[in-house]
Amino acid sequence: MRNPELVEVLRGTRTESRHRGAVAVVDADGAAVLTLGDIAAPVFPRSAVKPLQALPLIESGAADRYGFGDEELALACASHGGEPAHVAVASRMLARAGLDGAALECGAHWPSHQAASHALARSGEAPSALHNNCSGKHAGFVCVACVSGVDHRGYVAAGHPVQREVRAAIEALTGVGVSEDQCGIDGCSIPTWGVPLAALAQAFARFGTGRGLGPARAKAAARLRAACAAQPWFVAGTGRFCSEIMRLFGARVLVKTGAEGVFCAALPEQGLGIALKCDDGAGRAAEVMMAALIARYLPLAGDEPAALERYIRPVLRNWNGIAVGGLRPAVPLAVIPGDRRSTRDPGPPVTP
Amino acid sequence: MRNPELVEVLRGTRTESRHRGAVAVVDADGAAVLTLGDIAAPVFPRSAVKPLQALPLIESGAADRYGFGDEELALACASHGGEPAHVAVASRMLARAGLDGAALECGAHWPSHQAASHALARSGEAPSALHNNCSGKHAGFVCVACVSGVDHRGYVAAGHPVQREVRAAIEALTGVGVSEDQCGIDGCSIPTWGVPLAALAQAFARFGTGRGLGPARAKAAARLRAACAAQPWFVAGTGRFCSEIMRLFGARVLVKTGAEGVFCAALPEQGLGIALKCDDGAGRAAEVMMAALIARYLPLAGDEPAALERYIRPVLRNWNGIAVGGLRPAVPLAVIPGDRRSTRDPGPPVTP
Repeated sequence: MRNPELVEVLRGTRTESRHRGAVAVVDADGAAVLTLGDIAAPVFPRSAVKPLQALPLIESGAADRYGFGDEELALACASHGGEPAHVAVASRMLARAGLDGAALECGAHWPSHQAASHALARSGEAPSALHNNCSGKHAGFVCVACVSGVDHRGYVAAGHPVQREVRAAIEALTGVGVSEDQCGIDGCSIPTWGVPLAALAQAFARFGTGRGLGPARAKAAARLRAACAAQPWFVAGTGRFCSEIMRLFGARVLVKTGAEGVFCAALPEQGLGIALKCDDGAGRAAEVMMAALIARYLPLAGDEPAALERYIRPVLRNWNGIAVGGLRPAVPLAVIPGDRRSTRDPGPPVTP
Repeated sequence: MRNPELVEVLRGTRTESRHRGAVAVVDADGAAVLTLGDIAAPVFPRSAVKPLQALPLIESGAADRYGFGDEELALACASHGGEPAHVAVASRMLARAGLDGAALECGAHWPSHQAASHALARSGEAPSALHNNCSGKHAGFVCVACVSGVDHRGYVAAGHPVQREVRAAIEALTGVGVSEDQCGIDGCSIPTWGVPLAALAQAFARFGTGRGLGPARAKAAARLRAACAAQPWFVAGTGRFCSEIMRLFGARVLVKTGAEGVFCAALPEQGLGIALKCDDGAGRAAEVMMAALIARYLPLAGDEPAALERYIRPVLRNWNGIAVGGLRPAVPLAVIPGDRRSTRDPGPPVTP
C-alpha cells in the first residue's frame, strides 16, 4: 500500500519536497475515526511511547518511594534537549536511588539544544549520558530496578526485568503481543517493538482516558498526563513542539515525538488517540500533520487557532531572516477522505 | 508521476523508513543512460550547482586578477562546514579584493562541523557570514563584481549583474531558459532556478567533458574540476561525503550536494552527468543513491569497491556504538529498469 502525501514543502510558490505517511485516529475501543494510508503495518514507535514506557515507574512504587513530582515524571516521558535543568532533574532522580549518571546505559551525546551544547563546550566538559535526550526515561528505568530489588545493571536488555515490565505495559495498552522479529534496538539501546499505527493510536486513547485499563493503571496514566501538562518544558525543552503544544493546551493534549517521523498524541476530552508516521522519517512533516490533526479534533477558542497555525503552516526563513517558503498539509483536513469524526461521548477522562 | 523508492532505512532486519526520488544519468548531448521517476519536472538545484555558479569567477577574469589557486576555487564550489581553514580562505578571497566578511550577504550561521562550532563557542565569538557554508561562493560573487567594476552591494539579487551572469551560465549549461515563475530564494539569499533533473544531469555532463561548451568555458569548467579534485576538503570538509568521494576518486568524479536531497555529479571519463533528488529532501538517501550510481558507472579497482560500499550501505550506530540498522538502495542497481548504459566513446575530457 502506498501511503498518501501528507505534507508539502514550498519554496516560493512551488513545491520543493513532499512527505508521505500514514495516520490513525482511534478511540479507546479501537474504533477508527480517521485513517490515512497503511495503519496495519508495524512501525517502530521509538520515543513516541515514552509515556507508556514510564508506567512501571509509577506502578512499581518507585515514583512514590523516591518522592518524584511533576518534573521528574515529565522528564521520564521526555526526549529533552539537554538543557541544564533537564540534566539536573535526571541527576536528582538517580541521586534519590543513591546513584549517579554512571548508572545510565543510554550513551552520551551533545545536547540537541544549541545554546546548551555551546555552553557545555565553553565549560570544557564533555557530554555525559545525563545529556542524552533519553536520560530521564533511563533514570526512571534505573529507579524501577532499584525499588524492585533487582540489579539495575543491564537494564536496557530486552530480557531484563525492567524491560519485561515495559514490554508488558506496551502490549497491554496497544493490545498487541509484540514479537522478537518485530524488535529493533533504539538509539538509547533499549528495545523498540514494532506495532501497527492503529494499535498505537488506541494505546494513546486508552492512556488519555483510562478506558480499558485497570484502576491502578488508569491512575498511573492520569498521573503521568498531569505531570506532562504541568511541566511541559521537561518533556522536550525550549521552543520544542511537544513542550509548546502542551503549554498551549495543558491537559487537553498529551503529545510525544519519536525518531524517524513518528508522533503520538492523546486527546482525553475527545477520547481519541493519534498515531502517525512519515514514511521518510521526517520530523518536520510529522509536526505539521500532528498540529493539523489537533486543530481538526480539538475544539479551539480564542488565540488557539492562530497559535496552532504557526505549526500547521510554518514559515521557512533563510539565514537573513527572509521568508523563502514553508510547510503545509497536503491533505485539506476539513475534507479528509475516510474521516468519520466520532460523535459518541467518550465519557469523562480519568483524573488522578 | 509517482517517483520510485530509491533508498530503504533498516532497523534490525525491518524497513523503518523509505525515501522516494528521481534520477537522471545523461551524456553531454542529452542522451539518457538511466532515468528513474520524473526527470522532467523542475527541481530547485540549490547548492548542487555551485560549480556551475562559479564559472563567472573564472570567465570574468577575477580568479586570475586575484591570484586564486585550487583552494579558493574549490571553496567557491563549496558547501563547507565552517572549519577554520574554510573561513580563512573565504576571508583571504575577500582580502584580495580589498574587502572583508562584511561584504558577504549570505547571512551568518554556526558551523555545521560540530567541533568547529564548539571551538567557536569556546572562543566567545559569534558566527559571522564567513562561517556560512556558502561563504566561498559568495566571496567569489563579490570578486566577480569587483573585477567587473560594478558595485558589489546587492549582489544576491536576481537583477544584479553578477546573478545575471550566473543565470546565463546555468541556462547555457542546462540548455534551459529559466523563468521567474520557477525561481526560489536560496538559504543564502541568491536565486535558485528550477530546472528539470534531465537538464541538470546534462549540464554536469557538459561541465565534466567540455562537450557543447565554447573553448573558454570548457577550460573554465576544467579548471574548477581540477581545483575540486586537488582540494576536495575545501568543497565540504572533514568526513563529509563530497570531500571523501573526491579524495577517493580525484578528477574521475566531481560531486556536489544541495539542500533538500539534491545531488549532482560529473563522471568526465564516462562522459556522463548525474542529477538526483529525493522527494522528501533527505540528504542521507541522496548520498546512498549517489554512491550507488558512482559504483554503477565508474569502473572500480583495488580498494575502491569497499571504500564506496560504506556510503552505499552505511551502518547506523546508536549512542553506544551498537549497529542498530543501516541504509541501502531500494533498487538493485545492477538491474535498474530503463538502464541503457552508454557504450559510445564520450571522447577525451577537456583538460586545463
